[in-house]
Amino acid sequence: MSELELLFLSNDDVESLGISLTEVMDAIETGLIAHGQHKVIMPSKSHLVLDFPNKLFNVLKGYVEPVNAAGVKVIGDFHDNYQRNLPSEFALVTLYDPETGIPFAIVDGTLNTWMRTGAVTALGAKYLADKNSRVLGHIGARGTSWYNVRMLDQIFDFEEIRVTSRRPESRERFADVLSSELGKKIRVMDNTEDTVNDADIIIDASRLLEHQILVADKDVKPGAHLQAYGAVLSVERTLPFSVDKFVVDDWSQCKISPYGQFADLVQKGELRDEHVYADVGEIAAGQKSGRESDTERSLFWHKGFAVSDIMLGMLAVEKARERGIGTKLTYFSRPRDM
Amino acid sequence: MSELELLFLSNDDVESLGISLTEVMDAIETGLIAHGQHKVIMPSKSHLVLDFPNKLFNVLKGYVEPVNAAGVKVIGDFHDNYQRNLPSEFALVTLYDPETGIPFAIVDGTLNTWMRTGAVTALGAKYLADKNSRVLGHIGARGTSWYNVRMLDQIFDFEEIRVTSRRPESRERFADVLSSELGKKIRVMDNTEDTVNDADIIIDASRLLEHQILVADKDVKPGAHLQAYGAVLSVERTLPFSVDKFVVDDWSQCKISPYGQFADLVQKGELRDEHVYADVGEIAAGQKSGRESDTERSLFWHKGFAVSDIMLGMLAVEKARERGIGTKLTYFSRPRDM
Repeated sequence: MSELELLFLSNDDVESLGISLTEVMDAIETGLIAHGQHKVIMPSKSHLVLDFPNKLFNVLKGYVEPVNAAGVKVIGDFHDNYQRNLPSEFALVTLYDPETGIPFAIVDGTLNTWMRTGAVTALGAKYLADKNSRVLGHIGARGTSWYNVRMLDQIFDFEEIRVTSRRPESRERFADVLSSELGKKIRVMDNTEDTVNDADIIIDASRLLEHQILVADKDVKPGAHLQAYGAVLSVERTLPFSVDKFVVDDWSQCKISPYGQFADLVQKGELRDEHVYADVGEIAAGQKSGRESDTERSLFWHKGFAVSDIMLGMLAVEKARERGIGTKLTYFSRPRDM
Repeated sequence: MSELELLFLSNDDVESLGISLTEVMDAIETGLIAHGQHKVIMPSKSHLVLDFPNKLFNVLKGYVEPVNAAGVKVIGDFHDNYQRNLPSEFALVTLYDPETGIPFAIVDGTLNTWMRTGAVTALGAKYLADKNSRVLGHIGARGTSWYNVRMLDQIFDFEEIRVTSRRPESRERFADVLSSELGKKIRVMDNTEDTVNDADIIIDASRLLEHQILVADKDVKPGAHLQAYGAVLSVERTLPFSVDKFVVDDWSQCKISPYGQFADLVQKGELRDEHVYADVGEIAAGQKSGRESDTERSLFWHKGFAVSDIMLGMLAVEKARERGIGTKLTYFSRPRDM
């Protein structure tokens, strides 16, 4: 066999592809549908914990039939990186030929992680929130938050966007940048209650180190849609039981993976199969209904999964190949069986 | 923070480093000692199974204190690759800074996997086999087999080396190459019984797809040392119980990982804690005795673990940096917290 080549896409390469929000959401939706149709193979994510919850790696792996690729993402979650003005998450996605196991691309997954998480947030709201939602209450102003708000606003074109976060400098900068980008004022709030109370869509993208209630059950009004996906419980623990629809991204993973917003409730046996309305992919694939009434309250817990990382990795690789972007590396010049 | 750089080492780069067998064995032994001293963090390997046992990926991850690096290896196990004259295993090792989670190197792990497995085989025999072992019986003539025989012969300088494998062309070529390299005739055998019967050291590096007995209990003579590490049971199932010392590389992983030589016995609850004499690292670190009598029979089951991959990955990176080998990639030109 001839030389094996690997395409490397750095963070700069991925940024330079200028992938649009719509392209990202389309790719992610294709992945959700494939998941709903069982056209993926995806064991639970696993973890390498150096010092919980400050220093750990998440390892996500899967195979997605529509793009015929296997992939593994390794993503750090290093909480103190902000002290060095670094993102807390750096991600590397490697992609493999499912016929031979040969790697063919290495793609920085840092930007893609933010984008794919934003897209899952936005798509979850598309299926479960009021189509006429006017007010977004968003907790968090770093990392994935940028794409949550951009993509949600593309779908809903909100009248009011409220944002809060732990550190004033983060939320001020976030509001400044996005206000000019979206052409609408973003309200910076100094507390979570005023941010989320009576909002049509509430997104809790907080990254707590210890449990704290940022979203109380009473703050989620009839008809509102809530999402929470931090690694530590940050909403009132009654919520998965009190909402009309509790939706997850992959319940089989939620049952196994030891970390995540409601993991503690799962491990204690309180949150069980019968509480889960659907995997979001079942709604995306049309197997189950999304929103069905004006007064229903819904909660979507997405832990994040490899299907999304593979979809965006492949999107980046295809666009990079078309446009000659990235570094071609020789992986093996003379591969041979020994 | 300034630009982040990634060092990429291709298969050719790793080969060009000319790492010696002794360097490999030293690095692997340092890893085993660290494991014995609990100076590693290593969850069990996990798996992405496309079509068992023909098409699957193993994902190994860990942190090793003596080299202060975290690492993840993704390695395919694609049984039919030989039909394309390709190795069944291609491996990619990525290495990370344990303080920030930032990746700093991507190293082809294909050659390193063969070498690290050979080194664990050789070190296991060093601790557990008769120092005056004269006869090696080796099943398997591909992949890791090359380094098993090379490294074992470096330690024991055998009088007789017998090799067999499923396909005659593989074993003939294996014997031709190694006979001239080691300067001694290698006996090519056409069946496993004659290969292993009465040998001082028996290594079963077979890669069966279905259970078959290649090594019978009666073929392991008093005083002999046996190793078997295929993914499917290939030795008589009495052996873990009948030997005097049953040693593994990492019992906690052996108890969880669903695949491997004796995994079925573990899952059925037959092979339990009380049957295991030691993790090999406990012997390497001097916490438990290795061989203690001339008549003891020992069996070492190594599934392979991330500690070895990280040790050899770091050895390659250090040598490559010294000698200016490899491709320096810009990973992030302007990393910043968002």
